[in-house]
Amino acid sequence: MAYIVDMRSDTVTKPTEAMKHAMVNSALGDDVFGEDPTVNALETKVAALLGKQAALFVPSGTMANLIAIMVHCNKRGSEAFIGNLSHIYKYEQGGAAHVGGVLLSTLENKPDGTFDLVELEKRIRGTDIHEPITSLVAVENTHNVCGGKVLPLKFLDDLAALCKKHSLPIHMDGARLFNAAESSKETPARIVRDCDSVSVCFSKGLSAPVGSALVGSCHFIGQARRMRKILGGGMRQAGVLAATAIVALDEVVPLLSLDHKRAQILAKVIQGMFLKTFTVEEDSVQTNIVLVKIPEHSHVTAEHVIQRLAQVSLAETQGDCKTPNDEGVILKAISFNSKTIRFTTHREINDEQLWLAIMKITFVFKEFEGSA
Amino acid sequence: MAYIVDMRSDTVTKPTEAMKHAMVNSALGDDVFGEDPTVNALETKVAALLGKQAALFVPSGTMANLIAIMVHCNKRGSEAFIGNLSHIYKYEQGGAAHVGGVLLSTLENKPDGTFDLVELEKRIRGTDIHEPITSLVAVENTHNVCGGKVLPLKFLDDLAALCKKHSLPIHMDGARLFNAAESSKETPARIVRDCDSVSVCFSKGLSAPVGSALVGSCHFIGQARRMRKILGGGMRQAGVLAATAIVALDEVVPLLSLDHKRAQILAKVIQGMFLKTFTVEEDSVQTNIVLVKIPEHSHVTAEHVIQRLAQVSLAETQGDCKTPNDEGVILKAISFNSKTIRFTTHREINDEQLWLAIMKITFVFKEFEGSA
Amino acid sequence: MAYIVDMRSDTVTKPTEAMKHAMVNSALGDDVFGEDPTVNALETKVAALLGKQAALFVPSGTMANLIAIMVHCNKRGSEAFIGNLSHIYKYEQGGAAHVGGVLLSTLENKPDGTFDLVELEKRIRGTDIHEPITSLVAVENTHNVCGGKVLPLKFLDDLAALCKKHSLPIHMDGARLFNAAESSKETPARIVRDCDSVSVCFSKGLSAPVGSALVGSCHFIGQARRMRKILGGGMRQAGVLAATAIVALDEVVPLLSLDHKRAQILAKVIQGMFLKTFTVEEDSVQTNIVLVKIPEHSHVTAEHVIQRLAQVSLAETQGDCKTPNDEGVILKAISFNSKTIRFTTHREINDEQLWLAIMKITFVFKEFEGSA
Amino acid sequence: MAYIVDMRSDTVTKPTEAMKHAMVNSALGDDVFGEDPTVNALETKVAALLGKQAALFVPSGTMANLIAIMVHCNKRGSEAFIGNLSHIYKYEQGGAAHVGGVLLSTLENKPDGTFDLVELEKRIRGTDIHEPITSLVAVENTHNVCGGKVLPLKFLDDLAALCKKHSLPIHMDGARLFNAAESSKETPARIVRDCDSVSVCFSKGLSAPVGSALVGSCHFIGQARRMRKILGGGMRQAGVLAATAIVALDEVVPLLSLDHKRAQILAKVIQGMFLKTFTVEEDSVQTNIVLVKIPEHSHVTAEHVIQRLAQVSLAETQGDCKTPNDEGVILKAISFNSKTIRFTTHREINDEQLWLAIMKITFVFKEFEGSA
Repeated sequence: MAYIVDMRSDTVTKPTEAMKHAMVNSALGDDVFGEDPTVNALETKVAALLGKQAALFVPSGTMANLIAIMVHCNKRGSEAFIGNLSHIYKYEQGGAAHVGGVLLSTLENKPDGTFDLVELEKRIRGTDIHEPITSLVAVENTHNVCGGKVLPLKFLDDLAALCKKHSLPIHMDGARLFNAAESSKETPARIVRDCDSVSVCFSKGLSAPVGSALVGSCHFIGQARRMRKILGGGMRQAGVLAATAIVALDEVVPLLSLDHKRAQILAKVIQGMFLKTFTVEEDSVQTNIVLVKIPEHSHVTAEHVIQRLAQVSLAETQGDCKTPNDEGVILKAISFNSKTIRFTTHREINDEQLWLAIMKITFVFKEFEGSA
Repeated sequence: MAYIVDMRSDTVTKPTEAMKHAMVNSALGDDVFGEDPTVNALETKVAALLGKQAALFVPSGTMANLIAIMVHCNKRGSEAFIGNLSHIYKYEQGGAAHVGGVLLSTLENKPDGTFDLVELEKRIRGTDIHEPITSLVAVENTHNVCGGKVLPLKFLDDLAALCKKHSLPIHMDGARLFNAAESSKETPARIVRDCDSVSVCFSKGLSAPVGSALVGSCHFIGQARRMRKILGGGMRQAGVLAATAIVALDEVVPLLSLDHKRAQILAKVIQGMFLKTFTVEEDSVQTNIVLVKIPEHSHVTAEHVIQRLAQVSLAETQGDCKTPNDEGVILKAISFNSKTIRFTTHREINDEQLWLAIMKITFVFKEFEGSA
Repeated sequence: MAYIVDMRSDTVTKPTEAMKHAMVNSALGDDVFGEDPTVNALETKVAALLGKQAALFVPSGTMANLIAIMVHCNKRGSEAFIGNLSHIYKYEQGGAAHVGGVLLSTLENKPDGTFDLVELEKRIRGTDIHEPITSLVAVENTHNVCGGKVLPLKFLDDLAALCKKHSLPIHMDGARLFNAAESSKETPARIVRDCDSVSVCFSKGLSAPVGSALVGSCHFIGQARRMRKILGGGMRQAGVLAATAIVALDEVVPLLSLDHKRAQILAKVIQGMFLKTFTVEEDSVQTNIVLVKIPEHSHVTAEHVIQRLAQVSLAETQGDCKTPNDEGVILKAISFNSKTIRFTTHREINDEQLWLAIMKITFVFKEFEGSA
Repeated sequence: MAYIVDMRSDTVTKPTEAMKHAMVNSALGDDVFGEDPTVNALETKVAALLGKQAALFVPSGTMANLIAIMVHCNKRGSEAFIGNLSHIYKYEQGGAAHVGGVLLSTLENKPDGTFDLVELEKRIRGTDIHEPITSLVAVENTHNVCGGKVLPLKFLDDLAALCKKHSLPIHMDGARLFNAAESSKETPARIVRDCDSVSVCFSKGLSAPVGSALVGSCHFIGQARRMRKILGGGMRQAGVLAATAIVALDEVVPLLSLDHKRAQILAKVIQGMFLKTFTVEEDSVQTNIVLVKIPEHSHVTAEHVIQRLAQVSLAETQGDCKTPNDEGVILKAISFNSKTIRFTTHREINDEQLWLAIMKITFVFKEFEGSA
């Protein structure tokens, strides 16, 4: 079987040995009755870590975000503001609109994952009956489509002041919040200080197999628990999953800095090639995501590059053109669009894998540059 | 009682004498049984006028647009593209999201009411299960918030080609379609040629008291009829309203050019004052709406100006400062935002009223310019 | 053209001369701006008549009921209890579920239009997260499918006590409330005393062409106004319709007793025939609806009878078999199901029309009885 | 810590040793990319077992049912028929109405879990625009609230014929389908032969920690996959859960007959006491649920009995009144309502636990009988 260097997403990470041990050795109960001690322990732990009152374990980040919007936007005709490049808008099938009946209004994301607060304030609706009721502002941290950017604290503080002025709650899609904390050397609690709710994901860089948490006040989580039930997110002996999330917080979070370093290395290598066809923006790599951009006018597409990366053999990269990919190392990446390739580092990309990836990437990029 | 020159909206128009006559002399029946001959006549007439198979009489333009979106976006997880300055997005309370479960995605409206078709094509979603199903593109013609602009035929033709390529239906919010037709000297049927559905409004410039029509194919209108029922838009002897709409089409549509001329005159007068605080863009007035812009940095707000316009007396405008507004003529306008004032011409603004309005507007504008 | 005796529904009634006069002579304004004096007058009048704070004019009873349920059931996961034979459940397309996301739970209607309050109390849900939130109980008065029955005051008082105990609001679908008041010699205000909201219809027995009102507290109507807007029920110069509703209240309501007497006569005539195939229950006709039942086992269906009633000529009923229906009098009725025929009396069924109807009905019923 | 004999529900079962082994030793992948081999294996296995084309792993039975209803009822204004005692109606918060916009219409469940097919056929709606679109009939097998009853094949076959005639799909909530198969000695595939979709649960009697599957045609599952995504039910390395479900099918399903035998024993013991206050209906125990009924008029409530069962000590049951529950054995049961107690047998109720339960139950029941 082929040996795969899978840099498509940190979601591909498999559970660690410690997680496997925890999975089979943790106390279990029926969480629908509120009796799973491991789930309860995880919820307490993650709430404390984020400086909030309570938390709720859910099967996915998509559900965590959906529940948050449904709870905050509980008036008929509610509107939530989100970034136009946010995961909620782009990759959650418009669930808040379809399932929750909420108008999702987009603000243009800047390259750093923020948006214009003056624009936001202008667009907050009043009480005119022609207009929806603005009920929520949601941010994403780190910001996936913006390349894993960490939202500046200054932006979050200014947003908090604005939202306080207009009595608007803030939800943070913190699927990669721990990456943000690691990168900025701030505590998660400080980052989310002024957020009324936060979702965090255990199955991305944190390597747990399944699960996210939604965090907020006791009152908020009480309502969220009802929403989880109506969506079918209530699970029975969910402790088998929660156990791995506890390990993830204790043992994988401290390792995130390694992912960030490796992403830096990859970025520097690509920058150092000074290509026209493939560029990584200066200082753009803050966490574990590297976005490589291809000029709009180029005939090269992300899809072609990704196919070639998956196909090329090591031997070939070393000047040997015999059999393609005979060593069976497959490098995987994904595209956001036809001109953007995303490489993600994570616990399963160690130094050796990074090295293999770099060899292939440099070879293939040069190949395309030559033909461009 | 005060004599009011009401330039807030063409919706304030009252029924003509001919409409009143028609209202009480038309054949009636129970339209829920499909038996109101006057409703049936109107539906046939408006469908023919727009070159479509069928039409449906509804209580409002908001309902016409809502039904259109619900019928076109009939798959779970559907998305409709609309302009970010469209009436559907700004002034219909997000009904398509709340009531219809549809994700409304906005495209930035250009000053002429169009949007970027390259941007649109990029944003059409594929079949990935993370994404909603793009199911509709809606345009507005004339475009209210853009100042009554007529969408260029070139834009509509290009949009049609693009939508055909992607098998996407087009809905036109044609609340002021007949103004567009008058201004561009095209037939309504030509303008909506490639639209799968169109809403037109009889209670704006057309002066009928109540009602809109939704127009499209027989199959589309069949489904729309079900949606009208579920929303509670089915009316009994609706012929009393339909009768006025028939008169509106026959007798008021030919007069729309007068509204357009008067709007031109008002615009020219304001432009001719060469003020810094109040400007009307060159060639921006194509139909019956005049938007006056105040610079962002100015301390003058639309609200102040509108209040002063309502208050100032004619005597005052002629140098007499005695009693405010003793002649009791009140001039009304509305604002889109704190820096945009909208004046609308319509059947009830005749030359004399226009003259009164101009006297007040020029006086008040100069007053503010002086204090700025 | 044929002369039609239309006993299908009181919705077929056309506006009176006084209504027509009012329609063209009432003061109008733009009701979306809240400026139509005739709409305002109607809303004040109907609120006062029902002893409530405020009212809202809407295009249909279906919309009035839908809005009421959406306002009362404003929590996610709400449940409303309704009768299984109620108009809301049977004839409003399930709008509260589809458009409003409300679980409609049915209670079995008894023949008098009430339901079992012990059963209701048992089924009120608690706070368990597996369960919806019981948020409303709705009744219908008079009860259409139960044959125009007037809900006993005792039932309404007991229901009120129960709902008060459980803090549940009551909505009354009072489409034919004025028939109930006439029949029971109670004031409308007494009947709806303990209801939190009431819908009344002007376009049924009251003969106005279009429109209903939703009535309740100021707070409730404030929210209802938002819901009317989102559904597209806001109308401009709605005074043309409201004017007819005012006339309806003043001039047609006092005539309802005539409709009830004529319905009694029709019922007595049918009862006096002592047929096996067609029966009207003793004392079942309280208002303007006469339900004729056919035994389940009979081969006769309501549809056949209705077709024959529409077809038979007067000459034929008098023993002359020449040409069918040469005098062109068509008698119309409708069926609720294959064994129930509904005849409705209303302002347009005068004594002569009733007489024509009775001649045809007695002839046709005997015909079927003979063949049975 | 207290030793608990937990007969509340088969959902409390914890994973077996074999499941734990499978959990940590199965091949994993990212199921959102469709790459988890264990999830794929489970989906193939359960589809084959039920004789259908495809399956989808989901976090809960509630989500499986919700998805099924949303996929079948994909037209605006759809209606689904369900039993009034079904889990979907009673314990899933009305999600199909709130989240899916579907009108849930209830049919009265008979004591055997079926409903009247004549009644169903009468209530199927036509095409009138006043009515919803009947789009689905759902059944539950075994039927929880009816006491774990197995739906007779005759009923399912008759239902299938009726639904075929009206082109209506059937969904089976088969949360305990394998109990039905064991009890009736039919294969699961035979039982669900005419169902268009089936949900089965692995975390009830089958003892897996988390998860259900939805089963149907390839086309149906394709749409269901989209619905799972929008609800947030997509999970990453879900193989850790799927692995336990595979073990459940292989190793726990064959043991279900033991649960059924133990439920029979408990029922016979209670029947053999010939009490007035507590009865179990003759032949009513077909699977792993025992419902004990208290007469309506009795002052004894299920809640009191359950509290006493949890409290009483073994010593006390043997005539020793010293310290309450000093041996620390707690017996747990739940109530469906104030007059119905439910005991459930499952893999963790072995002969010894059953014996302890019976000692307490007989003692406590006699106690209440004496005081009644």
